[in-house]
Amino acid sequence: MAISDNRYTEAQVIAALKEIFATSDPRISIGIGDDAAVVTGGPNQILTTDMAVAGVHFRTDWSSAFEIGRKVTAANTADVLAMSAKPDYLLVAVALTGSETIEWITDLARGIKYEADLAGAHVVGGDISRAGQLVISITAIGSTNKPITRSGAKPGDGIYLSSLTGWSAAGLAMLNSGSTEVGEPAEKALSEFKSPTIDYGFDASNSNALCDVSDALVIQAAQMAEASKVCFNFDLAKIQASPEFGELEKVAQKLAANIWSWIFAGGEDHVLLATGRDLSGILIGEVTQGAGLANVPAGVEAKAWQHF
Amino acid sequence: MAISDNRYTEAQVIAALKEIFATSDPRISIGIGDDAAVVTGGPNQILTTDMAVAGVHFRTDWSSAFEIGRKVTAANTADVLAMSAKPDYLLVAVALTGSETIEWITDLARGIKYEADLAGAHVVGGDISRAGQLVISITAIGSTNKPITRSGAKPGDGIYLSSLTGWSAAGLAMLNSGSTEVGEPAEKALSEFKSPTIDYGFDASNSNALCDVSDALVIQAAQMAEASKVCFNFDLAKIQASPEFGELEKVAQKLAANIWSWIFAGGEDHVLLATGRDLSGILIGEVTQGAGLANVPAGVEAKAWQHF
Repeated sequence: MAISDNRYTEAQVIAALKEIFATSDPRISIGIGDDAAVVTGGPNQILTTDMAVAGVHFRTDWSSAFEIGRKVTAANTADVLAMSAKPDYLLVAVALTGSETIEWITDLARGIKYEADLAGAHVVGGDISRAGQLVISITAIGSTNKPITRSGAKPGDGIYLSSLTGWSAAGLAMLNSGSTEVGEPAEKALSEFKSPTIDYGFDASNSNALCDVSDALVIQAAQMAEASKVCFNFDLAKIQASPEFGELEKVAQKLAANIWSWIFAGGEDHVLLATGRDLSGILIGEVTQGAGLANVPAGVEAKAWQHF
Repeated sequence: MAISDNRYTEAQVIAALKEIFATSDPRISIGIGDDAAVVTGGPNQILTTDMAVAGVHFRTDWSSAFEIGRKVTAANTADVLAMSAKPDYLLVAVALTGSETIEWITDLARGIKYEADLAGAHVVGGDISRAGQLVISITAIGSTNKPITRSGAKPGDGIYLSSLTGWSAAGLAMLNSGSTEVGEPAEKALSEFKSPTIDYGFDASNSNALCDVSDALVIQAAQMAEASKVCFNFDLAKIQASPEFGELEKVAQKLAANIWSWIFAGGEDHVLLATGRDLSGILIGEVTQGAGLANVPAGVEAKAWQHF
């Protein structure tokens, strides 16, 4: 993050942001610029908010403004997908330290816009403030015909991940170790940490229970098991059989890391965890009668990724 | 803000917040606890967000957690009223420093709940994070049959305030001066600074243009004049004739302050500024042909209250 040339006014920043976030979607009757936005809502409106803090959720020396914008947006759109819904609108509140250049700020906005486009969502408003630390708080508003919660898992359901967890933790481990490893799996790990790929195409409409793995698989699976009053029984052989496992294993071997910790206790992957019959994605186990989790690999610490 | 006894887990905080924000409103099918809330939306959905930072927008040594909760909530609900809409739902994202007690956090939540109740809104979700500085970011979602923007002011319209601006600036001046002034107007000034009274009962549905005076009267009036392509012509004698002016003048005299600066260039009052015929509130001037502002009192500096 450059720390010079911050000679811009709020009006200049807002003008630049209005241009970046310009949209002609007919559902948005009033966008950025008035006291509030006016949009077309629906009977099942999905509301979620997620705040990210520099030094806690992202590091400006590790990630570009564009990557940070993508990542914080993705954390929000993933929560909408996690209700089997589609993101429609975003509101972005940012506290700047005053040391960001206008280029950095507009790069952040372009990252937000890029991810919003992938999600099919529009930025319709926001707020800019001042703080000692960069803080980005996004709210996502979505819609669905049939919301799917965490509490519908039934014994006999398969447990599915939209894609393999652990990549973000692998990227973080690489950065922490100063690893200079290159090649496809390493690139993917770094990229997933900096801006996780959200499975916008995952069809969750037939699932019985659904959530977003934002903290860690063991945490979200335990929450879903508790909400559904069932047991989540993992099948490690099935996880090992997924093509992604072999790729992630290459990174784990290079760093002499425990791949199961990454998969089960890593965080910030924002893949979807679903239960049901014959879903797409990676089958990782079965819902059974009982409570809690079964067959969590040895050596996985449940502390996982928590920012609070 | 007490800085001990912060031996609580995120789960404990969330459990306390779920209890404080519990609601049985039938429009909320899923509230706090899943990936996102699910609520009933409508054709004209109002979306706005506002972030407040400790040391910038509020001070924990000046205001109680309850007052801070009210103030930040009010800043958001006022933006919904400013579209001639009703606040329905709130999302609250908070970054805590780790030095807050659970009592302080629940007191903040009760302040948010208190103001939300006044506004007729429900807290349906949020996020808790960690930062070096306390940050509160709220999103308000509202609804209306007919949104009113800043751009509809017409020559011949009266200019109205739902109540007099300047009280929050007066309270800030008192705190900055260490004034020990007591009595009704002083109490009102302090109270308006700490938790501004929002004019939830103000009927703006017949106004031609409407906004929330969050920064300063001169700033919002200039924005409205520009958006409407008209001139805002103030009538100081009419402002002086309002009963609130006499009260505010008592505080200004004690501090030897310029009352016109408070009224025109103070900030954070969150009263409504409307134009139209025979509206309620305080008549403060007339919309005329032309551009910009006319008859702004001498000595009012346009710098006003800006946090960016």
